[in-house]
Amino acid sequence: MAPVKKGILERLNAGEVVIGDGGFVFALEKRGYVKAGPWTPEASVQYPDAVRQLHREFLRAGSNVMQTFTFYASDDKLENRGNNLKLTGAQINEAACDLAREVANEGDALVAGGVSQTPSYLSCKSKADVKAIFRKQLDVFIKKNVDFLIAEYFEHVEEAVWAVEVMKETGKPVAASLCIGPKGDMHGVSPGECAVRLVKAGAQIVGVNCHFDPMTCVETVKQMKEGVVKAGLKAHYMVQPLAYHTPDCNCQGFIDLPEFPFGLEPRILTRWDMHKYAREAYNAGIRFIGGCCGFEAYHIRAIAEELAPERGLLPSASEKHGSWGAGLEMHTKPWVRARARRDYWENLKPASGRPQCPSMSVPDSWGVTKGHADLMQQKEATTKEELEQLFDKSKTH
Amino acid sequence: MAPVKKGILERLNAGEVVIGDGGFVFALEKRGYVKAGPWTPEASVQYPDAVRQLHREFLRAGSNVMQTFTFYASDDKLENRGNNLKLTGAQINEAACDLAREVANEGDALVAGGVSQTPSYLSCKSKADVKAIFRKQLDVFIKKNVDFLIAEYFEHVEEAVWAVEVMKETGKPVAASLCIGPKGDMHGVSPGECAVRLVKAGAQIVGVNCHFDPMTCVETVKQMKEGVVKAGLKAHYMVQPLAYHTPDCNCQGFIDLPEFPFGLEPRILTRWDMHKYAREAYNAGIRFIGGCCGFEAYHIRAIAEELAPERGLLPSASEKHGSWGAGLEMHTKPWVRARARRDYWENLKPASGRPQCPSMSVPDSWGVTKGHADLMQQKEATTKEELEQLFDKSKTH
Amino acid sequence: MAPVKKGILERLNAGEVVIGDGGFVFALEKRGYVKAGPWTPEASVQYPDAVRQLHREFLRAGSNVMQTFTFYASDDKLENRGNNLKLTGAQINEAACDLAREVANEGDALVAGGVSQTPSYLSCKSKADVKAIFRKQLDVFIKKNVDFLIAEYFEHVEEAVWAVEVMKETGKPVAASLCIGPKGDMHGVSPGECAVRLVKAGAQIVGVNCHFDPMTCVETVKQMKEGVVKAGLKAHYMVQPLAYHTPDCNCQGFIDLPEFPFGLEPRILTRWDMHKYAREAYNAGIRFIGGCCGFEAYHIRAIAEELAPERGLLPSASEKHGSWGAGLEMHTKPWVRARARRDYWENLKPASGRPQCPSMSVPDSWGVTKGHADLMQQKEATTKEELEQLFDKSKTH
Amino acid sequence: MAPVKKGILERLNAGEVVIGDGGFVFALEKRGYVKAGPWTPEASVQYPDAVRQLHREFLRAGSNVMQTFTFYASDDKLENRGNNLKLTGAQINEAACDLAREVANEGDALVAGGVSQTPSYLSCKSKADVKAIFRKQLDVFIKKNVDFLIAEYFEHVEEAVWAVEVMKETGKPVAASLCIGPKGDMHGVSPGECAVRLVKAGAQIVGVNCHFDPMTCVETVKQMKEGVVKAGLKAHYMVQPLAYHTPDCNCQGFIDLPEFPFGLEPRILTRWDMHKYAREAYNAGIRFIGGCCGFEAYHIRAIAEELAPERGLLPSASEKHGSWGAGLEMHTKPWVRARARRDYWENLKPASGRPQCPSMSVPDSWGVTKGHADLMQQKEATTKEELEQLFDKSKTH
Repeated sequence: MAPVKKGILERLNAGEVVIGDGGFVFALEKRGYVKAGPWTPEASVQYPDAVRQLHREFLRAGSNVMQTFTFYASDDKLENRGNNLKLTGAQINEAACDLAREVANEGDALVAGGVSQTPSYLSCKSKADVKAIFRKQLDVFIKKNVDFLIAEYFEHVEEAVWAVEVMKETGKPVAASLCIGPKGDMHGVSPGECAVRLVKAGAQIVGVNCHFDPMTCVETVKQMKEGVVKAGLKAHYMVQPLAYHTPDCNCQGFIDLPEFPFGLEPRILTRWDMHKYAREAYNAGIRFIGGCCGFEAYHIRAIAEELAPERGLLPSASEKHGSWGAGLEMHTKPWVRARARRDYWENLKPASGRPQCPSMSVPDSWGVTKGHADLMQQKEATTKEELEQLFDKSKTH
Repeated sequence: MAPVKKGILERLNAGEVVIGDGGFVFALEKRGYVKAGPWTPEASVQYPDAVRQLHREFLRAGSNVMQTFTFYASDDKLENRGNNLKLTGAQINEAACDLAREVANEGDALVAGGVSQTPSYLSCKSKADVKAIFRKQLDVFIKKNVDFLIAEYFEHVEEAVWAVEVMKETGKPVAASLCIGPKGDMHGVSPGECAVRLVKAGAQIVGVNCHFDPMTCVETVKQMKEGVVKAGLKAHYMVQPLAYHTPDCNCQGFIDLPEFPFGLEPRILTRWDMHKYAREAYNAGIRFIGGCCGFEAYHIRAIAEELAPERGLLPSASEKHGSWGAGLEMHTKPWVRARARRDYWENLKPASGRPQCPSMSVPDSWGVTKGHADLMQQKEATTKEELEQLFDKSKTH
Repeated sequence: MAPVKKGILERLNAGEVVIGDGGFVFALEKRGYVKAGPWTPEASVQYPDAVRQLHREFLRAGSNVMQTFTFYASDDKLENRGNNLKLTGAQINEAACDLAREVANEGDALVAGGVSQTPSYLSCKSKADVKAIFRKQLDVFIKKNVDFLIAEYFEHVEEAVWAVEVMKETGKPVAASLCIGPKGDMHGVSPGECAVRLVKAGAQIVGVNCHFDPMTCVETVKQMKEGVVKAGLKAHYMVQPLAYHTPDCNCQGFIDLPEFPFGLEPRILTRWDMHKYAREAYNAGIRFIGGCCGFEAYHIRAIAEELAPERGLLPSASEKHGSWGAGLEMHTKPWVRARARRDYWENLKPASGRPQCPSMSVPDSWGVTKGHADLMQQKEATTKEELEQLFDKSKTH
Repeated sequence: MAPVKKGILERLNAGEVVIGDGGFVFALEKRGYVKAGPWTPEASVQYPDAVRQLHREFLRAGSNVMQTFTFYASDDKLENRGNNLKLTGAQINEAACDLAREVANEGDALVAGGVSQTPSYLSCKSKADVKAIFRKQLDVFIKKNVDFLIAEYFEHVEEAVWAVEVMKETGKPVAASLCIGPKGDMHGVSPGECAVRLVKAGAQIVGVNCHFDPMTCVETVKQMKEGVVKAGLKAHYMVQPLAYHTPDCNCQGFIDLPEFPFGLEPRILTRWDMHKYAREAYNAGIRFIGGCCGFEAYHIRAIAEELAPERGLLPSASEKHGSWGAGLEMHTKPWVRARARRDYWENLKPASGRPQCPSMSVPDSWGVTKGHADLMQQKEATTKEELEQLFDKSKTH
């Protein structure tokens, strides 16, 4: 039997750094187990070996949190996305919990059960209906006794607040993470105000995940923190950004970039970019630091290596990694050996090898760049039908 | 018991497309199981689950060849690279064969035992000594009854010829693949002449792998084919390039790029780049088409999807992939749904998101770009000591 | 004798578009008549043919304003910059007026006498002393009977207000143009507030020139206009931006870019960029539209061609220019003839031909990007000595 | 009366560096005096002040050669291009000679009369007809007593040879300059062979101008020199390249780039690029070093400054230029003063300020990149009609 581990709040209260894991959806899409478009996690049932292996890579890279692979695993979403496997949400959520627990037990990691935004909210179902959707997933998490809960990937703070309210009923620690940038949520609520609402609803940890690159996400969490402090409240902070550079995003993040989701390769962060991110997040007072789409094990390892002095340990996977390129010291070519040093990699400006490509794109939403946000704010379209009517209307102008 | 499969030569003689796998060293480095610098494959013994999982991803993506994960697994290399695990070459090679065979048996794939260039050759050991090194690995491959043999990643055709000569003693089909570009091997032997020598030594399949991007590799194999045809010989052709764009390489390939090996991310090919590569290779008459460093399962799947009409089947992993972005048809945002079409992805020029980075680098070898090649040709330095003396000398000018 | 022309205010009050000229300092530096560093206009005396020719090119391109080439021609500046020609400010200013008048008389252009910021202000001379400097230049302008006055290239609105106050004493129409961006002047006064102060001081026309690219300048003038309107005041608006793309500037504009002033070539706007600028400025309600550093005659012509429908005429130089590339219709090569159309040039994304260069730079001020602005706002350093002390201090951190 | 100057051959025979001038057509197009498309030089008659001023700028920048502004001033071309001014070739050529002579007399420069390729050749007129065209221009040059002759901007060496043959009849020194790159002329004749034919026809100076960037042009002249030396002949060498970076050109040079001629700005060379070019040309043994399209006075000055040690003097315009940025030493901002040094500018990688643009383009000829060259070599199309038929044909494939 595994020794009793410190809980998430104990760790954060003690000032420890908690390292999150990376994004399962994108990593498993590349490996052939998740379909881009629906993005649903049937693989927990279908291909448990593949999911388990990815959990292990993150654990080995230093992750202290195994998030259940339950993104978009609410019943309404599974149905909406043409789930032709006839798997129920309960089946998927249970399998995901078992895999996360199995691997968490192999190291110093906790299991976090995760829920994310629902089509029910977008199509204007009632608060009670939306909460019922969350409750179904949470029932599984409680049955499987996860260590804490994360409401993540919410574009609308209102829906996230509802999720937090349901989660609080369970008595588990609650983290809440929006997929927003510095301009706030899709109704224009600022990051600071979003954080305040989430903390007031009961979240002990607040932050952002996905949609933007690491530096943008850290900046957004800084604003959340300012809001919380200004409101005289207290919270812990988390950040789990993309592993893609997105300086050219507008308010909806990387979804609107023309490269999403099948041409993002040139934007992938190097391990050295991750060192800078980890330091920046740490300096901003964020202590739950992980990743989302695009993160692979070596990105998480880079965070763990950067924060090794603070954490007092290197991750297992550093057995296979010389810090700052030290492994190159035994390369046969002298000019490659010359790269085995920190300042070389810190200062490298890596070329794309694509001279016919630009360095920035124009976000691709409703023809005109700012069109979407503007329309969203003029008229609070929350159903898919409304969104599309607005879209069609914008096309005719 | 698995049905008897068609051998590699039967397939190629019948005009079939044989899809190779991707690169294990780089993929497992990112996952935390291989150390950059030594690049040796102890993971076959240490972390069999991780190696097996990667084999499975490639099989599922359409690979017909499971190469044993035995790169740099010759005894002299393992020793030279500070193998502190005290694993013998035999242990590693045996474990790798077992894993490759286990997964090959799960689908329509053959097992190929692979040897690569040795430090013994570079340090001017005798032909007999170098052959003895190859023989030790081949003994394992014969014992484990691999389906065919590949001599790959040779910078000097002379050493590759020696490897082919030893391989021919086994009676197995032999493929030979150099890591050269259009300018030829490190002694300046042209691709055409290299191919002729390999065919004359007995290789039934010749081609290139690693070091250059797909289009450059296809161009090199075209030159090989021209040489073989002009000499009145016959062969099959193979290509297993990098998954990195390298238009700025000189004759030693991506090793000399300043981004090697830890800053190559912006150069990673998209799946759509792979479609173009697969078509180009096919049109050039190459029928054994795979990948090397940087290739992940989705890159191999793209090859299999591009050549599905010719092969008459889609790979298993296409279950989780809508061809040409079709999976996006069910995305909630209309402007993302608009990306679910072939011409969108074919024409996309993906941005790097790195406005402060260039699109091309200057290869980083001996200070001056062409210095290395020139020196190599003036004086045939084959020992590490000689190389370094030349390097030091070049620095003083 | 030339017919009596409509004055600047008559034109603007009537809603006419007034086209400014381009930048003399940079154009004459390239031609060999101005020294970068001092940037002083001795050429009006030394090389009148060269200065006259440039005036004529702008006139021919459509300019309605001939600005006297008197930038940095205040006595304190000439002295400070090592004026070893022993020319007095009066000599230079008089010669410049004569040249501007001579060419203005050749077409539909007015003469504007211009003063710019002074070293006296930066070194904390008294308001009276600074005004005395301006008065010396203005005396010449009155003697030479210029048509109106422009206070341009001021980084501090306070000094610009002083200049306007002196100018108002002359009874001539007064324009005031700061070299600031959307973040405001060097003391952090916002564009809106700057504009209000200038209008209250008596300027009838306010706007910005130099330091930023066209779109940034138009955005800044928009903010000025909002400020003026909100204050219940009235004014006309002018904009005379750089002909360089500067998306990577901080608050001090292109001076801080590492390319300033000898490596700006890749940033030069095309004529088609100018069409977009002219339209954007016009749509923002700006009616005095010209250029500053980097502008050459063909840039001004592009403004005049874009606004030809509004102005009811093409400039003389359009005799030598087919609108939107129409001149290419008689090219011998069919694929060049295919470029003789508007949408071709509107959509072209011109390549730099420099694959080893980035697309954006990091502004180069006091080591850290925002350092300068921060320091300037903490401590209002207004003398050169203070600035340098701060600089030295920042270096030691 | 001006002292008798050393002739072009005396200078070159003595090993002196002769600095050419820059391109009139492009410079005057920007100033508003030449129409892109026809590119004809009526301005010599229409706007002599503008032409004279440009001559003076080049003289002041260090040019030893004033080329008559007679590009495309043959009667057949003027007619073909819709010369609606009813100016005869003789009128234009005479005016151009007078202007060149006037300015040449103001300094140490010679006058060179220039002829360029003709529509008569392209439309398959006889050798006698084509020579008659050249003779008409040459009659003017002899009447006006130019110092030497240049046949420049020839895409077909055959036509250039005819021009040289006519020029030789005059007894003047003859230079011949093709607008070709390393792949040779439009019929595929190599640079070395082209040079040999021109020297055999009597040219004392051979080289290239226009169409490619400086480094490509120097490389081409090197090949010319190798050919001449191998043939046991002797000649002097000249190079007058574009001031645009064109690494992405195919055999027809910048004409085929999508940016030609109205979007080339991001490719303009800096003065520091010119230093490198001048040194490279000098090291290659070229002694007549000038420029073509895109060159402005400061580019020529940079050549003169780079070669000041060899020439023993600085040009007049260096009075207004601190070598290697020295003029910045008196800038008010300390971080700009820090740029007043050679290594700063030598190592600068200037940004384009255009993050949405690529760094290289795909040449735009007949739809497919190599189509043009291939077709040209299959079938020697020399008439416009034939060219267009081929073009139309290539479109249907």
